[in-house]
Amino acid sequence: MPCGDLLDLNDCSVTDWKNLIKLADDIRLNPRDYMHRCEGKVLATLFYEPSTRTQMSFQAAMLRLGGQIIGFDNPVNSSVSKGETLMDTMRIVSNYADIIVVRHPQEGAARAASLYARCPVINAGDGGHLHPTQTLTDLVTLSTVKGRLTGLRIGVCGDLKYGRTVHSLLKAMSRFEGNRFYLISTPELSVPDYCKEILDNAGCPYEEVPALDDCIGELDVLYMTRIQQERFATPEAYEAQRGVFVLTPEKLQKARADLAILHPLPRVDEIDPAIDEDPRALYFTQARLGMFGRMALMLRMLEDDITIHSEREHHLHAAVCSNPRCITHTEKYLSRSVCKDENGHDICLYCEEKC
Amino acid sequence: MPCGDLLDLNDCSVTDWKNLIKLADDIRLNPRDYMHRCEGKVLATLFYEPSTRTQMSFQAAMLRLGGQIIGFDNPVNSSVSKGETLMDTMRIVSNYADIIVVRHPQEGAARAASLYARCPVINAGDGGHLHPTQTLTDLVTLSTVKGRLTGLRIGVCGDLKYGRTVHSLLKAMSRFEGNRFYLISTPELSVPDYCKEILDNAGCPYEEVPALDDCIGELDVLYMTRIQQERFATPEAYEAQRGVFVLTPEKLQKARADLAILHPLPRVDEIDPAIDEDPRALYFTQARLGMFGRMALMLRMLEDDITIHSEREHHLHAAVCSNPRCITHTEKYLSRSVCKDENGHDICLYCEEKC
Amino acid sequence: MPCGDLLDLNDCSVTDWKNLIKLADDIRLNPRDYMHRCEGKVLATLFYEPSTRTQMSFQAAMLRLGGQIIGFDNPVNSSVSKGETLMDTMRIVSNYADIIVVRHPQEGAARAASLYARCPVINAGDGGHLHPTQTLTDLVTLSTVKGRLTGLRIGVCGDLKYGRTVHSLLKAMSRFEGNRFYLISTPELSVPDYCKEILDNAGCPYEEVPALDDCIGELDVLYMTRIQQERFATPEAYEAQRGVFVLTPEKLQKARADLAILHPLPRVDEIDPAIDEDPRALYFTQARLGMFGRMALMLRMLEDDITIHSEREHHLHAAVCSNPRCITHTEKYLSRSVCKDENGHDICLYCEEKC
Repeated sequence: MPCGDLLDLNDCSVTDWKNLIKLADDIRLNPRDYMHRCEGKVLATLFYEPSTRTQMSFQAAMLRLGGQIIGFDNPVNSSVSKGETLMDTMRIVSNYADIIVVRHPQEGAARAASLYARCPVINAGDGGHLHPTQTLTDLVTLSTVKGRLTGLRIGVCGDLKYGRTVHSLLKAMSRFEGNRFYLISTPELSVPDYCKEILDNAGCPYEEVPALDDCIGELDVLYMTRIQQERFATPEAYEAQRGVFVLTPEKLQKARADLAILHPLPRVDEIDPAIDEDPRALYFTQARLGMFGRMALMLRMLEDDITIHSEREHHLHAAVCSNPRCITHTEKYLSRSVCKDENGHDICLYCEEKC
Repeated sequence: MPCGDLLDLNDCSVTDWKNLIKLADDIRLNPRDYMHRCEGKVLATLFYEPSTRTQMSFQAAMLRLGGQIIGFDNPVNSSVSKGETLMDTMRIVSNYADIIVVRHPQEGAARAASLYARCPVINAGDGGHLHPTQTLTDLVTLSTVKGRLTGLRIGVCGDLKYGRTVHSLLKAMSRFEGNRFYLISTPELSVPDYCKEILDNAGCPYEEVPALDDCIGELDVLYMTRIQQERFATPEAYEAQRGVFVLTPEKLQKARADLAILHPLPRVDEIDPAIDEDPRALYFTQARLGMFGRMALMLRMLEDDITIHSEREHHLHAAVCSNPRCITHTEKYLSRSVCKDENGHDICLYCEEKC
Repeated sequence: MPCGDLLDLNDCSVTDWKNLIKLADDIRLNPRDYMHRCEGKVLATLFYEPSTRTQMSFQAAMLRLGGQIIGFDNPVNSSVSKGETLMDTMRIVSNYADIIVVRHPQEGAARAASLYARCPVINAGDGGHLHPTQTLTDLVTLSTVKGRLTGLRIGVCGDLKYGRTVHSLLKAMSRFEGNRFYLISTPELSVPDYCKEILDNAGCPYEEVPALDDCIGELDVLYMTRIQQERFATPEAYEAQRGVFVLTPEKLQKARADLAILHPLPRVDEIDPAIDEDPRALYFTQARLGMFGRMALMLRMLEDDITIHSEREHHLHAAVCSNPRCITHTEKYLSRSVCKDENGHDICLYCEEKC
């Protein structure tokens, strides 16, 4: 099992998280102390699908630590991604770079990449599976703007069914004491059962709320997410329900004065731009804090202060993953391994779907 | 009104220009004195249409000051430009960068961008509107190769109707004493009336000249520009007139020994490559000097020595801009503001077309 | 004739090669001694066709010397490559950069580029013509992993007819004493006569071998290359012959314990991934060593310790090159020059095909 990779934020302990948050905070307040810390280091950003915002955040983070950057931003332009296995690309690029950030449209691709890289790998999003530095961004932001990660009343609003960002946030925040969740969505886009199980197992109170209006006055944090209109049967169905999801100045009138409004960005229509100048609108601050979170993460990974590793038990039996979006379907050389999840079920090592 | 942006070179005073030219000169002569001046700074080059030459000039400029670079070169590859407003992109990127250079196909886009960025913005070309660092390049070049910006006999040749480069150059050079202009073109592609008004108001003598041959012997400076064959009704019409516009070794025989031949590049057919080795051919030197001009500009903007701001009067009434290429037509959240031009007419704040 | 370019590794003496290898070795062992050596220098990588691996190798090399990078990776995104001659692009970019690496699909493009650049140019592959830093990579690798460049039994396997990598390797290794070559291929893809002439002239023993199995036990070095299935009349023809070319764990059982298996990468099917963990599999090490070779090369070119120049005799008579892939067919301004090859034949100055 490779050490030193960041594939899933849950492979780190809460103590690791707190240390990262503390370090991110110190970097933000004392940037000059860190501007030479990664001198001589090279980051490769290998983006098998474009995600300019995330890529620029990582690049700026490494440059502000004194390191340098190489990489590609689109497979169409890149000979690396044509006719070469992910395995070979990782082996070659880890000769050039000291740390690799991978973004890939297939689920489990980051774990597959980490098996062959000879340097630390960070998952910058593998399909609908995980995006741990977004969750790290959210933790750094909550800690910075609310001063704590405990005892918060957190509303999450939007597409709670497909939004991996929300699932990861719920899982992460359920590990801190005293948080209460308001799951604001329509029945069609409500949180999947496995997320509710996580909250139940952690003993976190939560309630499903049919519209933003119904709970906005109680919230410390409102985490908005994108609604993809394609999720709805018809444009009319979307229009009929958008009142549930869209944050407007009118709705905000009922909110607390210290509400923190977050959004992973990019937004489409979910937040009226008229709110942007409200001091409670902290989604651009969140993007900024994410850069400091990534600086903290890369610094610790490169300085070997941190060893992130999964403690999962592996079985090397020849299971074929049934998830069609799993990386094992295109990268045939991968050993088809399963491991146990928290409940003892066999899951694919890569995409973590049940086998 | 944002301060510290460079959207239009005419927002700077002639004194500002002279200081920039002097600084560019010092950087060129003493590059080692400047190689760490922007250490720790990050430039983002956001190119919504490709312009590799301009982008590389800015990138090399920042790197030679000790700074670093991020950005994108093509909207097709970039998730930033898909489904995200220019406003949101600027807010996010200004979290990562200390200075932003924007190139955009729509007129007024740079001003729109500057309203939302939390760091200085440089306009690297917004459609057919403005391209102030090209004009700065031209000023630095004239000052360096002629030793002065006054008392010059300046020929401008080519498409004088649509070429924004020439319009800006005429406007800028009319602010210095004793310059005389030769406008060399066909009637179809002659200088628009508003440029002649500028020259008239400044008291600059000028004459319209039907062919290069007629005045080349009198010139201190010959500024050549691209002819787009699409401007002509037929290929035959172009061929019939190309003698007016194309510089050949034969025509050059009549020129003064100290003529300076400039061109904003890329050239197509306007200058015969046989001239390239002539010491009067200074268009590649011009490209080099442009890099030093950009170094001077970014250095002063980052060190806060310079505050560039428009003194125009703003009216915030709801005018819809009638220019179909204006950024206000696609970025709907922009306030449709008008301001007054030099003659007191209402013009669109963004693209500066009359409303 | 421009000096200081690397267009063809054979323009350097064997002493130059040995010095580069020695320097690459020292950089690899003492990287911190070199991490500021190119401070203030800018590399431009101008890739007129994508080759991400090669581009990242050069970029990482320059960054690890303390220099910086600009450039483009795809002509489709680049305005430089549209409507601008290679000549003008080189003149402009050499204003911004201190050294230029060019990759181009047409043969002879690197030499054409070098005629107009005002800084050193490195050929990173010009069509099917040359790719000298791949050959440098191979020399550095053989020297490092075998401890010598003499007295080696070297098998080359695969498409020996079209593979420029193999041709260059044979030519280079024939300049060292005591090397013996095993040319492993099918008759359809065997080494062209001109390569055999080089070996004959150098007095190097060689034999043509019909299958890998027949000689693998005798080899010190096995250099594998890509087979392009398009070279075969039918997929069945390829399948019938693949046993000749494909390296499997079974075949490897007969090999010496100190065999070095190399491959220029990317591989397709020629090497079974089951071999990758074998200590004799050194193709990923080779990619790593290539970066150090490129560091050594750029360092010496920038520090002016090395002057590489062709000693060929030039005739400036107006020959039109008959090679349709030659750069002279698209860049019309190039003087159609011929020079003499080793045998006194007239060859095109650019692509080196016979005229």
